[in-house]
Formats: sequence, structure tokens, C-alpha cells
Amino acid sequence: MKQVVAGVDIGGTNTIFGLVDRTGKVLAESRILTKDYPEINKFITALSEAVNKLVKKDHDLIGIGIGAPNANYYKGTIELAPNLPWKGVVPLAELMKKKNSVPVIVTNDANAAAVGEMVFGGARKMKNFIVLTLGTGLGSGIVINGEVVYGHTAFAGELGHTTVVPGGRECGCGRLGCFETYASASGLVRTVLQILSETREESSLRDIPPSSLTSKIIAEAAAGKDPVALEAMDYTAEMLAFGIINSVAFSSPEAVFLFGGLTKAGDILFKPVRKYVDMNIMPIFKGTVKILPSGISESNAAVLGAAALAWNELKK
Amino acid sequence: MKQVVAGVDIGGTNTIFGLVDRTGKVLAESRILTKDYPEINKFITALSEAVNKLVKKDHDLIGIGIGAPNANYYKGTIELAPNLPWKGVVPLAELMKKKNSVPVIVTNDANAAAVGEMVFGGARKMKNFIVLTLGTGLGSGIVINGEVVYGHTAFAGELGHTTVVPGGRECGCGRLGCFETYASASGLVRTVLQILSETREESSLRDIPPSSLTSKIIAEAAAGKDPVALEAMDYTAEMLAFGIINSVAFSSPEAVFLFGGLTKAGDILFKPVRKYVDMNIMPIFKGTVKILPSGISESNAAVLGAAALAWNELKK
Repeated sequence: MKQVVAGVDIGGTNTIFGLVDRTGKVLAESRILTKDYPEINKFITALSEAVNKLVKKDHDLIGIGIGAPNANYYKGTIELAPNLPWKGVVPLAELMKKKNSVPVIVTNDANAAAVGEMVFGGARKMKNFIVLTLGTGLGSGIVINGEVVYGHTAFAGELGHTTVVPGGRECGCGRLGCFETYASASGLVRTVLQILSETREESSLRDIPPSSLTSKIIAEAAAGKDPVALEAMDYTAEMLAFGIINSVAFSSPEAVFLFGGLTKAGDILFKPVRKYVDMNIMPIFKGTVKILPSGISESNAAVLGAAALAWNELKK
Repeated sequence: MKQVVAGVDIGGTNTIFGLVDRTGKVLAESRILTKDYPEINKFITALSEAVNKLVKKDHDLIGIGIGAPNANYYKGTIELAPNLPWKGVVPLAELMKKKNSVPVIVTNDANAAAVGEMVFGGARKMKNFIVLTLGTGLGSGIVINGEVVYGHTAFAGELGHTTVVPGGRECGCGRLGCFETYASASGLVRTVLQILSETREESSLRDIPPSSLTSKIIAEAAAGKDPVALEAMDYTAEMLAFGIINSVAFSSPEAVFLFGGLTKAGDILFKPVRKYVDMNIMPIFKGTVKILPSGISESNAAVLGAAALAWNELKK
């Protein structure tokens, strides 16, 4: 019998899941449509059945890890997640355990990404590191002394909502100037619009409706030397470095891993981030922190992160 | 025989030390002048002798904790401390161990204050909290999962040098807009000068040379309803809240303890800090973090913190 765990990533549209062995190999993968199940019990039944369909005769399913928005690691719940169909507090771990009598571990997607990095990725030998996921927002998973930081409430690690520009850009959280309004895929789009508004610079990006503008289009324009795209990339890198520098003063990590859509820009992003970190970091921390791309391929990162959560817990 | 530890606080002018029992009672206390010993070996000899002079026949000295600027907990060293007479890297723990064959633990003063709070103060039942020491600068000790955060380098917890105002006030670290240039005793003085420069407000503080202005004078003026002093206190509280709010997004502590000269202002400081934290914190953290005065009396806090460091280590 081969021991496996299930990694589950619950998103607003899809719930994807897979079986993962101890070495990080994804043995099977599938998905269900989250919004097909407005009733949580029906969702749990469908998910359990779909997971068990992947389990072969020679597999021994020994744990389930779940990444989900607004997940509470301590309680095993999802609490008031705005993009999921279920209202109030959902006792996710408890419901899953009733269907499968194995340990069920729940956390948010950015924390799962951090555990994935620690168990299967670039942080395998690290005790202190931070993962920043740069998508529509900015998620973060912080590891200190080999443990994910959950804090008193279980909701620690909200670096996307630290204020980097007092009175700055409006954020989805209702506050102003949050880190994620600058350092994320959508932050990059906003920066392009700001530069287009402030300068007379010619740019191919002027021909694209703002609602169609994406970080991918901007990265491609930057690769083609579009001056606005290049300036926007540079500013995004400077702001990303700003937030990284403040995080280093807090927990002095060995590395900060960047993950998600925005990082596909590659060197156009990483080079200036490293430059600004080096230029502006407190002298005592100079040269102590690496800025690295995630060591996990994006295609199955969510499933691997959630599976790593289960493997990591079973190890304890 | 009564088990005791020595708590030592090395400062630029004085080195104070005392014997402390397991309950936090200071049994004896004394000091030597740090600057009388420009040669480190002579300092160690003098310190050891002075500590041993305090040890009575029925005392069993089982450990020594030392708080010192730029101390490296992992290595037991002091590294390039600008206000101490010794140059380079001083192997403090090793030198002390040669004179006294007991465990010697070294950390910086703010981390020692955090351990003091955890072992003898207001954080005795807490696993996640932060101590901010508000003196000339702003020091910080961060505890997560019951452990002081040292990070990859041993120098984690430099919240005083997170940037709160990009391009803001000049800091001693050579950078601009650091938290401690606003939220500290000297930050309060700078804020008074700024208000005096920007407004025509009448104030008794206009009669005092800037070099003589202290946080104590300003707190007294605020208590007497001086409008400039009150406005400066309010702004300092708002900036302090700003830094606290960003820290909560990082580690979600149960409490933030404020310690040091500035906190003597009492409610004039604490009330607006709590108000601004409540007003501006991310909704998910609302009501989850207490803002508290330190539970350790300032008169022997440095010795107690250093002693707590030794007791805490001996427990492991």
C-alpha cells in the first residue's frame, strides 16, 4: 500500500484536488464546480466522493489538506468568505472528517503555499521565510522557526493589508494605501493607469480599455520596451521591495519567495526588486535575504500546497 | 540553597545587574560604570567579581542573562554596538562562561523586555504578543508561539526601523521615515517642533530651547491642556497606532505592551492609541488586540528582563 494525502484548493469558481505522495508527486487530479453546490453538505458529499474516486486499491489515504479563503487553521473553519457560496462560519474540517476518518487540516491558500514551499519547494532547508502570492491581491504566508505564523486569531500573515502609502489607493478591505493595491497584478494595472494619467508618454497600452488590461499584457509590453510598461514594472518592484524591507525588519527571513501571475514577468520584475531591496534595506540586514521565485510550478501549486499541509501535520 | 540567576543590562554609561529568584524577586542589585573598562577582558573580570559579590552563601547561581545593544542571541556576541566602548565582535557569552561555569544567555534589551513580560509581567499566559519600548528610539521584542522571534540573522524585531512615512523624518539609521522617528520620546519632541513651525498656536513649549525639550515636559504640558502638547500627543498616538496596526497584520498578537519613558504620559497616550487602532485596523482584527502598559515596573525592568532570559532558557 502506498500512503497518499489529498490536497484540496477551494476557490470561488472551481475546487481542485489531487492525490499526492510523500515526495510531492501528484498521482491524480480532478475538480468540481464550487458554485454548483450552494448547500455546504452537498458540496462536502460531492467533494468526498470525487476524492475517493481518485483513490486506487493500492493507495492508503492518510490525510486531507485544504486551502480555502478565510480559513481558520485553529478551528478548521471557513469564516465569512465573500467569494464562496456558503454564509457564516462553515465547520469544514469537521464535515470532511465525518466522511473520511482521517486528519483534515485547513488553512488559507497563501499559508498553504508557504507550507508547499517548505515541504516540496525552494524552502526545504529553511526555518525562516516568507511567501508572497502576487495575483489579483497579495497573499502572504510567514514561516518562523519552521512554523507557519497564525497568531492569536489564526489570521496572521495579512501583509497585503499593511499600509504602505498613508492615504493612498482605495483597497477592497475598505482602507487606503494597502500593500496589495500596489504590489499585485491589479496593482500593476493601476500603476499603468496612473502613469498614463500623469505623463504624455506614448504607449501601446493607451489603446487597451482599462478593464481589459492585465499584468500579462503589461509584462509583454515591458519586454517590448514600452516606456510606460517599463516604468510601471519599476514602480511595482520598488513598492514590492518596500513591503519586503518592512517584513525583514519584523522577522528577518532567509528568503522571500514570490509566487503567482505577476512573477511570470521574470527578470523584468525580480532584478529591480532585488536592486531596491539592496538600496533601501536597513544596513544590518543588507545581503541577508534572498528574493527568489517559488520552487513550485504554478500548474499544481494549489494542490501541492494543500497536500503539503497534510504531510506536514502528519509528521508532527 | 536558593537557586538564583543574575540579570545584567549593559548600557553605554552603566552596567546594572542583580540577583533574581524564580518568582521575579530582585534579591540584590548593583552597578559598574561601563566606560571605566575600555578593554573587554577587564570589563568581564570586573562584572564577574561584582556579580559574585552579590551571591550569598545560601545562593546557588545557576545562570546569567545579559541584555545589551546589538546582541546576537544565536552567537552570544555583541556586534558593532556604536554606544559601547568595545570595537568589532565581542564574544560576550563565551567570556562570561569562562569566569562562571553556568549558562550565559545574551540578547538585546527589547527582546529581554519581551521575555521579562512573558516570565514575570503581563504576558504570563500569552503565546503571541509584542513589546514596544518607547525611549530615545523604539525597540521591539516579538513573541510568536511562545518564542522570541530572532529570525535568520538573530536581528529580527527591528520595528523601530520599518518605514511609516516614505521620504519622512531623517533617522539615525541613515534612512527616512522610520517608525521610531515618530513613535518615541524623541519623536514626540520632533512632532512638537513641527507643530510649532506649522501653526501660530500659543504654547508654553515655545519658551523652551529644543535641546532641552523632553517627552516628560511635553506630557506635563499636555496634562495642563497646552494645545500644542495635546496635538503632538495625539499625532504620536496616531503614528504609534499606525505601526501597531501593520504589526497586527503580520503576527496577529493577543496584546501589544508599551514600555518606557513615553508611556508615563498614561491615558493621554493610551486612550488615543486605542482609539486610532480601533478606527484604522483591518476589520478581521478589530477587537482582537489589547494595548497595555507593561506589567513590569520600570525601576528594575532591565535586570528582570535579563534575568527572565536566563530562567526561560533554563526551563527548556
